Amino acid sequence: MKCTKCGGKAVINMPHHNFGLCKEHYLEWVPAQAERFIRKYAMLGKEDKILVAISGGKDSLSLWDILRQLGYRADGLYIDLGIDGGVDYSRVSKEYALRFAEKIDSKLIIVDIFEETGKTIPEWAELDLRGKGKACSVCGLVKRHEMNRIAQRLGYDVLATGHNLDDEAAVLMGNTLNWSGDYLLRQGPVLPEEEGMTKKVKPLFRFYEREMTAYALLRGIEYVYEECPFSKNATSIQYKEVLNQIENAHPGVKHAFYLKFLEAKAGGLFNEKPGIHPVLHPCELCGQPTSAPGLCSFCRMVQKQQKPANIAIHKETQ
Amino acid sequence: MKCTKCGGKAVINMPHHNFGLCKEHYLEWVPAQAERFIRKYAMLGKEDKILVAISGGKDSLSLWDILRQLGYRADGLYIDLGIDGGVDYSRVSKEYALRFAEKIDSKLIIVDIFEETGKTIPEWAELDLRGKGKACSVCGLVKRHEMNRIAQRLGYDVLATGHNLDDEAAVLMGNTLNWSGDYLLRQGPVLPEEEGMTKKVKPLFRFYEREMTAYALLRGIEYVYEECPFSKNATSIQYKEVLNQIENAHPGVKHAFYLKFLEAKAGGLFNEKPGIHPVLHPCELCGQPTSAPGLCSFCRMVQKQQKPANIAIHKETQ
Repeated sequence: MKCTKCGGKAVINMPHHNFGLCKEHYLEWVPAQAERFIRKYAMLGKEDKILVAISGGKDSLSLWDILRQLGYRADGLYIDLGIDGGVDYSRVSKEYALRFAEKIDSKLIIVDIFEETGKTIPEWAELDLRGKGKACSVCGLVKRHEMNRIAQRLGYDVLATGHNLDDEAAVLMGNTLNWSGDYLLRQGPVLPEEEGMTKKVKPLFRFYEREMTAYALLRGIEYVYEECPFSKNATSIQYKEVLNQIENAHPGVKHAFYLKFLEAKAGGLFNEKPGIHPVLHPCELCGQPTSAPGLCSFCRMVQKQQKPANIAIHKETQ
Repeated sequence: MKCTKCGGKAVINMPHHNFGLCKEHYLEWVPAQAERFIRKYAMLGKEDKILVAISGGKDSLSLWDILRQLGYRADGLYIDLGIDGGVDYSRVSKEYALRFAEKIDSKLIIVDIFEETGKTIPEWAELDLRGKGKACSVCGLVKRHEMNRIAQRLGYDVLATGHNLDDEAAVLMGNTLNWSGDYLLRQGPVLPEEEGMTKKVKPLFRFYEREMTAYALLRGIEYVYEECPFSKNATSIQYKEVLNQIENAHPGVKHAFYLKFLEAKAGGLFNEKPGIHPVLHPCELCGQPTSAPGLCSFCRMVQKQQKPANIAIHKETQ
């Protein structure tokens, strides 16, 4: 296969776009596409103070790299979840995050969940009912809470996460298998700012996972290869597998699934009348918006253990 | 495993219901469940003249059997599609349909597509653009047209088809992968009567495919084992496979997927305001309702071959 732009040797073939690119043109194409999506969906402005959620994996580091290349004001936020899982997962991930921050000479904020809450994610998963054998639910809750807390405290305009098309399509499959109205109505590449809630965007949501892997490799980004040890039996991994099976038989189906969902939503397929959306009010303890009465789910979980969340600590590097 | 009702040897285990049944109680349970669903969804009344679409397979013959057992006035309709496919598919299917009609002493109407339209389904699939290598689309169009034509001409109140849960979940997966608003809004176990369009119901839509196979086998119903030779690479078969994979990991997921869809729809998830539903008017040639201007898709396809559909011929047995 030849590069569609220069006729050189292609390093990646994208059957859904019906073209291939050489290394040089691929490394140009990805940021250019990202910029196109950022504008098309009104995600970011050049004046915005952006906080990128960094896991140490290929997607978040690539996102940070791309945003800096494109001239955005993007700092990183690494949340240390305290996960070992036999592979020293959190420590290794943090190493990659720190090394990359240094390489691109950018600020990385580090939040340590153990210091913040007195327990690691695996410990919370053991204690909390929602953890029952799987830490993902507790972890999601804690990360969403902490990302928003830091963004609000430090005055960031936008939170950016590295979710790619495979991630988003798998979540969409879960939401449709359950027909969760709330989740379907909220799922999208942009969650607008609300009182107490920083705007969230997913600039990579139209890139396939393999495209991001190729980008990180070709760009020489060093990232943690291990998946989180708790994700092994996650349903999202299973949904990714079945979507890949369908994709293999019908290239482009994953892309169409997600894009047509957004189109259908924009075209009025769903009933967005009030009453379907939950009403938000500030948590009595931390002040973050919540649909639960009284405390938000994070504070309720932490308070059950009689140890209020320390909402002040964070460290900064640079 | 023991029968939950009598403690005898269970012949079938239903993990999603969390019980098993012996042959005797299973053969009682299936019609009783069917009756429950028929009432719950207001599908059929005891005075209705019902036409059951009979393919010669396990689902349609079992449906006919169940409706007769429950005391419904149900005749059969066999549509001879003229499919050979190396296994003499249509002739063999018709044999099973005829033998079963005789066994239960019921009327079977036979429509022969070659006699009606001058061509078999495989011939139409070759000619028509929508056939491109797969006959399913043309076949669906022709069957829907003919079922409604016969039901309208002969004064049936309801058309019943043998779609089971696996069929419906696979169709729903296709409709969500494409986010086809029209199809999502129309999909359901009951399609109400409209001007020129007979009411359609799917009384087996809450039974798993394996439950219907077990019913047919235990009840001694002889049916055509071969799948239609054209269905081999149908996307619906692929969707059934991936749904089975998810079901194996999470028993009940297929059932929940479809039932929660119906609940979400009834609960107002979708915007059902006019404009999303197509406006129907009568086809200028056959008079059946269509959303296309002028001729319906069936008549347009037939007219392209300069041979108007003969809309009068049908044969009856008994």
